[in-house]
Amino acid sequence: MKVVVIGGVAAGPKTASRINRLCDDAEVTVVEKGEFLSYAGCGLPYYISGTVKDSKELMSTPVGTVRDTEFFKNVKNTRVLNHTEATAIDRARKVVKVRTRNGEEQELPYDKLVLATGADSAIAPIPGVNLDNIYSLKDIHDADRIKAKLAEHQALNAVIVGGGLIGVEVAEAFHKMGCRITIVEFLPQVLGILDPEMALLVKNHFEAKGVKVMTGTRVTEFTGGTQVEKVITDRGELPADIVIMAVGVRPATKLAVDAGLTIGPTRAIAVNNQMQSSDPEIYAVGDCAEKLNMITGKPAYVPLGSTANKEGRVAANSICGHSDKFPGILGSAICKVFDYNVGRTGLSEKEAVEVGYDVVTCLAPAPDKPHFMPSAKLLYLKLIADRKSRRLLGAQAAGAGNADRRIDIVAMALMAGMTVDQLANADLSYAPPYSPAIDNIIAAANTLRNKMDGLMDGITPAQVLELLEKGNDLTLLDVRSPAELEMMRIEGSVHIPLGALRKRLTELDKNKPIIAFCKVSLRGYEAALILNKAGFRDVKVMDGGILMWPGKMVRG
Amino acid sequence: MKVVVIGGVAAGPKTASRINRLCDDAEVTVVEKGEFLSYAGCGLPYYISGTVKDSKELMSTPVGTVRDTEFFKNVKNTRVLNHTEATAIDRARKVVKVRTRNGEEQELPYDKLVLATGADSAIAPIPGVNLDNIYSLKDIHDADRIKAKLAEHQALNAVIVGGGLIGVEVAEAFHKMGCRITIVEFLPQVLGILDPEMALLVKNHFEAKGVKVMTGTRVTEFTGGTQVEKVITDRGELPADIVIMAVGVRPATKLAVDAGLTIGPTRAIAVNNQMQSSDPEIYAVGDCAEKLNMITGKPAYVPLGSTANKEGRVAANSICGHSDKFPGILGSAICKVFDYNVGRTGLSEKEAVEVGYDVVTCLAPAPDKPHFMPSAKLLYLKLIADRKSRRLLGAQAAGAGNADRRIDIVAMALMAGMTVDQLANADLSYAPPYSPAIDNIIAAANTLRNKMDGLMDGITPAQVLELLEKGNDLTLLDVRSPAELEMMRIEGSVHIPLGALRKRLTELDKNKPIIAFCKVSLRGYEAALILNKAGFRDVKVMDGGILMWPGKMVRG
Repeated sequence: MKVVVIGGVAAGPKTASRINRLCDDAEVTVVEKGEFLSYAGCGLPYYISGTVKDSKELMSTPVGTVRDTEFFKNVKNTRVLNHTEATAIDRARKVVKVRTRNGEEQELPYDKLVLATGADSAIAPIPGVNLDNIYSLKDIHDADRIKAKLAEHQALNAVIVGGGLIGVEVAEAFHKMGCRITIVEFLPQVLGILDPEMALLVKNHFEAKGVKVMTGTRVTEFTGGTQVEKVITDRGELPADIVIMAVGVRPATKLAVDAGLTIGPTRAIAVNNQMQSSDPEIYAVGDCAEKLNMITGKPAYVPLGSTANKEGRVAANSICGHSDKFPGILGSAICKVFDYNVGRTGLSEKEAVEVGYDVVTCLAPAPDKPHFMPSAKLLYLKLIADRKSRRLLGAQAAGAGNADRRIDIVAMALMAGMTVDQLANADLSYAPPYSPAIDNIIAAANTLRNKMDGLMDGITPAQVLELLEKGNDLTLLDVRSPAELEMMRIEGSVHIPLGALRKRLTELDKNKPIIAFCKVSLRGYEAALILNKAGFRDVKVMDGGILMWPGKMVRG
Repeated sequence: MKVVVIGGVAAGPKTASRINRLCDDAEVTVVEKGEFLSYAGCGLPYYISGTVKDSKELMSTPVGTVRDTEFFKNVKNTRVLNHTEATAIDRARKVVKVRTRNGEEQELPYDKLVLATGADSAIAPIPGVNLDNIYSLKDIHDADRIKAKLAEHQALNAVIVGGGLIGVEVAEAFHKMGCRITIVEFLPQVLGILDPEMALLVKNHFEAKGVKVMTGTRVTEFTGGTQVEKVITDRGELPADIVIMAVGVRPATKLAVDAGLTIGPTRAIAVNNQMQSSDPEIYAVGDCAEKLNMITGKPAYVPLGSTANKEGRVAANSICGHSDKFPGILGSAICKVFDYNVGRTGLSEKEAVEVGYDVVTCLAPAPDKPHFMPSAKLLYLKLIADRKSRRLLGAQAAGAGNADRRIDIVAMALMAGMTVDQLANADLSYAPPYSPAIDNIIAAANTLRNKMDGLMDGITPAQVLELLEKGNDLTLLDVRSPAELEMMRIEGSVHIPLGALRKRLTELDKNKPIIAFCKVSLRGYEAALILNKAGFRDVKVMDGGILMWPGKMVRG
């Protein structure tokens, strides 16, 4: 059996190696247009920052063997042709046309073909985008060029166009290298995978670290001589010694399109759950292949190295006659933003509403360990669920606390189709150095249950702010202790500590809507229950408390 | 509705507070024999070590309010009688007899009664066990006495009897306080919740930190004047200035037994999934209540603060007429042992075999992040599954790497009854600062799949050692690189680097069984596949590689 794999970076080599492990009679050839094989593209920002010292580490095995063509031949029994570009697929004759290192045209016959052509950086058609020192970050060559520029001198003015995952990772790397950084994002928020209130936390953290973030800002032109000097936006000009274009990636599908394979609604190659394209002899894996969202059952496009590896295994199993099925993805993602860990899985609130769920959410900021442990750090958490079925739909986390663990707990619950009630009774590992006795996820799930059971009527801080801005007359009831008020409070709020509330009910106007809150709104919830029992009829709890307040605050 | 709750530490206050939130007409009284309420018993080792400075932090809310009787009255609308001991339950008359702070006998009538009497330290009937400076660690008073003793001078000789979770946590605390420590454990290993090869890693780590660990050792006597001076064991005497008895806990069931309630096979109070005892008006929650193992469907006893809180919520919901069910536990547990994170969930291999599963396991040591990230740390992982159903049964983790996340991922998979195949395709959050592109859990699940699919014939390092000790003639084939061999190797092993194996097959004897391995046995697996394809018939892969080797090693 002859197998040709087009693409030698992630999903391609994985598929090839697995086929060679499974089949005695397979003859596998990997075609890669670049030089480097099987390298960790996700590590590039850490190479730029110097965290990874040598680019060879990105293409080595854990014991330091570089994965070159010799390695693939001796260890994986796989022929790899690098510097070789696949130029066309002739499906009728089952051959791949390639152009080799020295410009020769050749044909590689196949019984099975695997497309692992990856993704390309999206190109923004902005005037001046081809000036020198404007880079995207797709491969090691890009990273080397960027590193050389950064090495020129400290305190370069850097503009990062795009505030998605790559933009955010590059921003941290550039900060480490001493740049003055501005992130310019066309959308009204950074990290479009998050809901706005979570993205705002990330933006605030960036600004606390000295990174300027301009959201809702369009780049109209790059100007300069041969090198970029200025980034012109609809909100002013920025000096720029270096620009990174991080406006997203697009599946690299030219070969597939030319060969007449079906392209899905996400513009990636349509595949079934064995990674077969519309031509069953041709598979597509990794960043060029469309994925299925496990929750909605609809096509999705989330290019990640973790998914690429799983898909490669499934394709290899299918090619070798082993039964296997790829169940799809959840859109799980995580990134480090300085001291913040920022992650998500499942559907965002926005996405869940679009799909048509009757969405219920909660915001739950809390220490990620018992408050008495000095290592405890704050983690902001958001859960999203469907009110009718009580099924969990997604989670988002941001903060210095441990986010990856909580995101993965929810990812597993989503994969299993669990309800919020099931999640709330999960037997998570507990000890004080790791989590509170009631883990953040379980506390958040219980808040959602209280809402769904009608025990708690929530309102988001953004909704409260909107009501106030529209001039609504309402009582903002802050039930924190006097010591906490010193730190920060919302102007115009009324203060009655929770412990005194039962005795001071007469101070509150029964005819005015009341919004109760505290630091994180656990006490706000208790306050609302006390008020409800005392006959107050219009009491809501502000989700996430003052910690999630997006408006102004005053001290003392 | 009159509700009496016996026990004011964890599950009791939780149940009481939730009842007050749910019911308008409930009159809840909590009876606690001690002084302190609602405190974090799990935090006591961190109070002893000075990590937690003030014991008040253990009984405070996150914003620093001490949970005393006033707090419960004002905030939770709950009457708490501390220094008040429940002495008997009269089920016919539905009253609890109590003895108050000043010795008065009273009767508290109830409509619903909640037992949250907790657990007591097990008492070992060893001669001399009542000498001074021999302590257990059940409450804040114990911790204060231990702290006072430790403050006397540095470098006390400390003996910890029992190498379970509490013993291990106390050992770390005592080490921080400068003690010379010996852990004496009757069983052949520390941490009986782990399988032996994982427990061995913990023992080795203890010894690397200067803590002496004597397993398989029985304490026969404590000697001294009024104070303990020596611990006498069947393997010699140990000088002792302080002794901690950490030989386990027993559910505190005297009241329940006297009242004729059904006690389960684990000696805890039998309950249904709404936490009702054999008397439906009496609930039992927390450490005094029996739990259900979600995997086996059989009774289990794992006392933990995390479980207590969930049970309290379920009991309160049931008492107030809300439907809710506690699904049971998985035996998830975690502890910090110096730089190691050590956890488990589900069934151990030992337990799974006892239950009758056709058990398949794998050992998977690997860095917890991509090897090129300087923050990557080694994590030893073990997965346990059922060969027939391919259902996941349990996981264990130990090492400096992130264990809690992996344990919780598996806990969620276990709760959902997932197969190993499902786990292998989980969409976990991935970025280099958090995990490898193929997460440790997914790599381990794939190893298990390879074993179940007959692609890999594994053998544990312990089995290999046994074969060698019995004089079996076999080839131990180490396929690591020469540079790795320098560090450590197994005497008598044959060395052929994986990359050279195909060319050097003639060096190996086809008639001898071959055990292939490398550092972690991923390359050992590739070697076995190469040998199988070349016609070698008896090739096994040593699970976990040389990193899990329990025998002697040589350098250079």
